[in-house]
Amino acid sequence: MTKERILSGMRSSGALHLGNLLGALQNWVQLQKDYEAFYFIADWHALTTGYADTAQIRTWVREIAIDYLSAGLDPDESVLFVQSQVPEHAELHLLLSMLTPLAWLERVPTFKEQQQEIKDRELNTYGFLGYPLLQTADIIMYKANWVPVGADQVSHVELSREIVRRFNHTYDRAVFPEPQPKLTEVPKLPGLDGRKMSKSYDNVIYLSDSPDTLSKKVKVMMTDPARKRRTDPGDPELCPVFDFHRIYSTEADRQEVAHGCRTAGIGCIDCKGKVIDRMVEDLQPLHEKRAHYTAHPDEAMDVMRDGSQRARQVAQETMAEVRDAMHI
Amino acid sequence: MTKERILSGMRSSGALHLGNLLGALQNWVQLQKDYEAFYFIADWHALTTGYADTAQIRTWVREIAIDYLSAGLDPDESVLFVQSQVPEHAELHLLLSMLTPLAWLERVPTFKEQQQEIKDRELNTYGFLGYPLLQTADIIMYKANWVPVGADQVSHVELSREIVRRFNHTYDRAVFPEPQPKLTEVPKLPGLDGRKMSKSYDNVIYLSDSPDTLSKKVKVMMTDPARKRRTDPGDPELCPVFDFHRIYSTEADRQEVAHGCRTAGIGCIDCKGKVIDRMVEDLQPLHEKRAHYTAHPDEAMDVMRDGSQRARQVAQETMAEVRDAMHI
Repeated sequence: MTKERILSGMRSSGALHLGNLLGALQNWVQLQKDYEAFYFIADWHALTTGYADTAQIRTWVREIAIDYLSAGLDPDESVLFVQSQVPEHAELHLLLSMLTPLAWLERVPTFKEQQQEIKDRELNTYGFLGYPLLQTADIIMYKANWVPVGADQVSHVELSREIVRRFNHTYDRAVFPEPQPKLTEVPKLPGLDGRKMSKSYDNVIYLSDSPDTLSKKVKVMMTDPARKRRTDPGDPELCPVFDFHRIYSTEADRQEVAHGCRTAGIGCIDCKGKVIDRMVEDLQPLHEKRAHYTAHPDEAMDVMRDGSQRARQVAQETMAEVRDAMHI
Repeated sequence: MTKERILSGMRSSGALHLGNLLGALQNWVQLQKDYEAFYFIADWHALTTGYADTAQIRTWVREIAIDYLSAGLDPDESVLFVQSQVPEHAELHLLLSMLTPLAWLERVPTFKEQQQEIKDRELNTYGFLGYPLLQTADIIMYKANWVPVGADQVSHVELSREIVRRFNHTYDRAVFPEPQPKLTEVPKLPGLDGRKMSKSYDNVIYLSDSPDTLSKKVKVMMTDPARKRRTDPGDPELCPVFDFHRIYSTEADRQEVAHGCRTAGIGCIDCKGKVIDRMVEDLQPLHEKRAHYTAHPDEAMDVMRDGSQRARQVAQETMAEVRDAMHI
């Protein structure tokens, strides 16, 4: 039986961190076994908010390629590619733009939200308004059935379904299937300051952080603010370090530190030391692969280039169908 | 000395008529001698207003190719190409979209005007808003110095200058020259009903009209409405047929028919007969070439394909510079 297709990608606007690993990459690694998977690095999307300062884009493409491979994305299982290396995405985006009402894009929640959030840059651009449309092109180019996304991106998949319906109806041909969002329960991973882990809060542990750097970051991370002294009892439910334990520690260790915290039987330093050991252990295979690819970045980029060629073949087939349906 | 570059194009949304010939094509034929000229058929632009009914787009591309060649555009002098055969235009359009403020596009006069004029279709689309940006990509892809346009398109060239300045400034590199509009005085050619000659008024003489069809159309065209009977004197200044005489007849003939009209010495049928003879004579070389290409449409399309390949080479060089400047 033919496998269904999934597609997902990340913007090359910075290095990936543990939030990206737990929230997306580990899920992708699982999915590539059961689906025909297309995973890409969205360097054109990085321009929607970062057009004014592009000096690092190529660096981030390379680093994310290394992160993808180190996290376990496997070019023998998945098609791994770079968006700008498949220029057909731009052509499909242009063709779709002709039949996409402005109102559909203006009502995408992230449009207004991001404009309000990111105040230091001029985001009222044509490209920024159109980026969910570019995402639609990314998705339907491969006729993806499923799109693993976070809850904040579900509206984008919904938009792509509307555009698919409009295209298929306008040209009276079922060129594209309607993609569905694939939501996966992911563990909650707070940042070092207890807020959501996010580059913009500067509270992240990067996949490129060495065990030593990781250790130093966790050692100074926020704990239950009410536990001011070693002798004060703490509340694990209010401590972001305990969220790390939930993810990385065994049930026995977790119970032990929770009890120790509540009774002031264990200090924060010891508690953190325990989770650091587990994190370093858990990340060891990733760190080893990362060390290899960091020493041989061309290998990672060769994988992306090969994958981009494979993606491009599929894209060219789709575009032939699209041009035919539109009589272009 | 290197020739300066010019670029212009027409939408493949219908057959070309005498208004297009006198207003643009004849000018292009002159310009190709003094400039390195790029002339294209804008089939993607035809989608901005015509996305919902594309059945005829390929027909119009072929017919316009035949019109271009029949009017005297010479593939040995000019690069003649089809927009969709140079997909780099879509990529440049996408990249430019990232740095183009929405407000710049919203204030283009033709955006609101056309929305008001064309009421039978949904034009409030993302692609319709972006079409002056696609024009910018068309122009600057070839680093055109001049764009022969009608007065109604000057605002589009102005927009492309703004985008060029923004691009060159943002990426700190003078990749693109600022294109200038090239306005040429063109003779006034009314339609058969006295209004502007335009497909949408159904008052046109097509380049594909045979001498016989042309003759029939002119024979029934509007004249000075005050001259109801053969014995009434007329006023050439109020007669659209006299505008045809201004373009096609000799000074002597023109004076003769003007005098005859004012004195009722010549009837409208004779007056029209004289100009029909001149028009058929003037269009004879075009009609002959058209007959050839209509019998051999593949020849015309081969010329466009060769030209598109030449255009694409230039486009690929430009895109290499663009990607380099943007670090993409």
